[in-house]
Amino acid sequence: MLRLITLLVAMTFSTIASAEPLASWADGPTKTAITAFVTAVTTENSPNFVPPPERIAVFDNDGTLWVEQPMYTQLAFIIDRVKALAPEHPEWKDEQPFKAVLAGDLEALQASGMDGVTKLLAATHANMTTEEFERIAGDWIASARHPRFERLYTQVVYQPMLELLDYLRANGFKTFIVSGGGSDFMRPWTERVYGIPPEQVVGSQIAMRYEVQNGTPVLMRKPEIAFIDDKAGKPVGIQRHIGRRPILAFGNSDGDYQMLDWTTAGAGKRLGLILHHDDSEREYAYDRESHVGRLDKGLDDAASKGWILVSMKRDWSQVFPAIGTTGAQP
Amino acid sequence: MLRLITLLVAMTFSTIASAEPLASWADGPTKTAITAFVTAVTTENSPNFVPPPERIAVFDNDGTLWVEQPMYTQLAFIIDRVKALAPEHPEWKDEQPFKAVLAGDLEALQASGMDGVTKLLAATHANMTTEEFERIAGDWIASARHPRFERLYTQVVYQPMLELLDYLRANGFKTFIVSGGGSDFMRPWTERVYGIPPEQVVGSQIAMRYEVQNGTPVLMRKPEIAFIDDKAGKPVGIQRHIGRRPILAFGNSDGDYQMLDWTTAGAGKRLGLILHHDDSEREYAYDRESHVGRLDKGLDDAASKGWILVSMKRDWSQVFPAIGTTGAQP
Repeated sequence: MLRLITLLVAMTFSTIASAEPLASWADGPTKTAITAFVTAVTTENSPNFVPPPERIAVFDNDGTLWVEQPMYTQLAFIIDRVKALAPEHPEWKDEQPFKAVLAGDLEALQASGMDGVTKLLAATHANMTTEEFERIAGDWIASARHPRFERLYTQVVYQPMLELLDYLRANGFKTFIVSGGGSDFMRPWTERVYGIPPEQVVGSQIAMRYEVQNGTPVLMRKPEIAFIDDKAGKPVGIQRHIGRRPILAFGNSDGDYQMLDWTTAGAGKRLGLILHHDDSEREYAYDRESHVGRLDKGLDDAASKGWILVSMKRDWSQVFPAIGTTGAQP
Repeated sequence: MLRLITLLVAMTFSTIASAEPLASWADGPTKTAITAFVTAVTTENSPNFVPPPERIAVFDNDGTLWVEQPMYTQLAFIIDRVKALAPEHPEWKDEQPFKAVLAGDLEALQASGMDGVTKLLAATHANMTTEEFERIAGDWIASARHPRFERLYTQVVYQPMLELLDYLRANGFKTFIVSGGGSDFMRPWTERVYGIPPEQVVGSQIAMRYEVQNGTPVLMRKPEIAFIDDKAGKPVGIQRHIGRRPILAFGNSDGDYQMLDWTTAGAGKRLGLILHHDDSEREYAYDRESHVGRLDKGLDDAASKGWILVSMKRDWSQVFPAIGTTGAQP
């Protein structure tokens, strides 16, 4: 009986704790703008009211929901896969872009261009079934660690963003990822980590071919890019997949510019947000000059477009979740 | 006060009425198979239990959720659009496939082949923004009528299927359309008619281009087919859009064969259903020889694949909704 009471008390406290929305957002104009927007669109009989089915919120992933420095996580995955597969491919020692990957020569890798990307995709993302790729990507994400923070990649997601996703969903929003990363690279873990199911992940995609192998249908991943969900591709991806215009968009780089513009140009109340990485101590500080997640035009235009620049340093009281909490489970 | 009581009583009765699931399905093995499947996958601690997020159900549209005879509704839309636009295009009188459409010559239209389809799409589905197309398609569907039943097309949807969609959703399923028809042709009305929101509509798609016109971002529809969601394209569309394999698929033609095969080949309990149009009195009777919605291989293989052949004549006590009821509102 005492155990039961203890459990009930613990549950009550945990409910209270999680009922405090946006706990890791510092009090100030950013947090106020977010809550004011949500209040406005969810208040019935208000001129800004938006019915729940139209409460679509879209989030970039790399640099918005999780760390994208020192390199996109999907590139870290590619490098690890090339290393793992290298023993079966002795020819890679002398063949670009594999040689560059194996030598850790990122400059030579970059020099290999689109041809290099296609070869890497073919070797690491294609010529296998969708289920094989899902298993490989899922296994990797369960064990690979971020080089600086020495945490699983699913533990270098941003605590304030997890809270924002929860807060929006609690207010009747449907949350989507709209990322330049590969849909099928994200889908094995987005539900567990972000509470975003596979069908709400819009990303870049490679071509697939349906085949029946010995009576068993499979989807083979082809070494061809079918869709790039970045820059002007993001509004296209949103229309193809979601079929209506979001009312809230959150990004962090110029790759998100068109998604923000498309979202906030719609009629009625809209919210556009850009995460500004200005915290080298707790995470990274980069914008106009960065090769990864460059933010230049967005920084120039945010004020005139009415987009909110979120300062990681000023607006977030905590960056990463405590290990072992929801969302950061391996 | 009496008014209030009357209202409450009315609400109670309407709740009871709508609580009777699958009311238009005749008692018999088909209805039993559906309810047994749903019970099996929703019973916790049963070996067949499927957690709610994985309860994905996919439905073909033409001939499965609504009438597809004597021609696909989207073709009726194209013909009406060509007629409406003809005064601005005097040259169409002598130019195929427009000449065939204006003369009602379906044979000549068919003879114009893929080149004809592309020209018709360009004239009726493209070279406009997504919002313009949505308005045109939405206006048309609000007024065009089926030639035989003289009802709006949204009123020649199948009442038993509306009930099945409701029943599945009440049991934690997420319902998707996976159709060869155009996503953007269906999305303006699927939520109102089927309770399926735009983001759960997977269909064929034309290419789009993001543009900023005088400072306003738009998505221009290009006269190019980007994706055909039919036959072997259906499992591809499911993977691209939903990212996991459904546990229930419902179709009516050989265009749904691969979707059914992909769905039911997955591990665990699965359900595949094919609507057999065998009711010329209340609707239409067609299968192996039909140009529209041909069902041939599916008819041969249903038994060996374990797919249920739903007989419209035997299994449905009612075909269309009463005018004015939910789902059939114009």
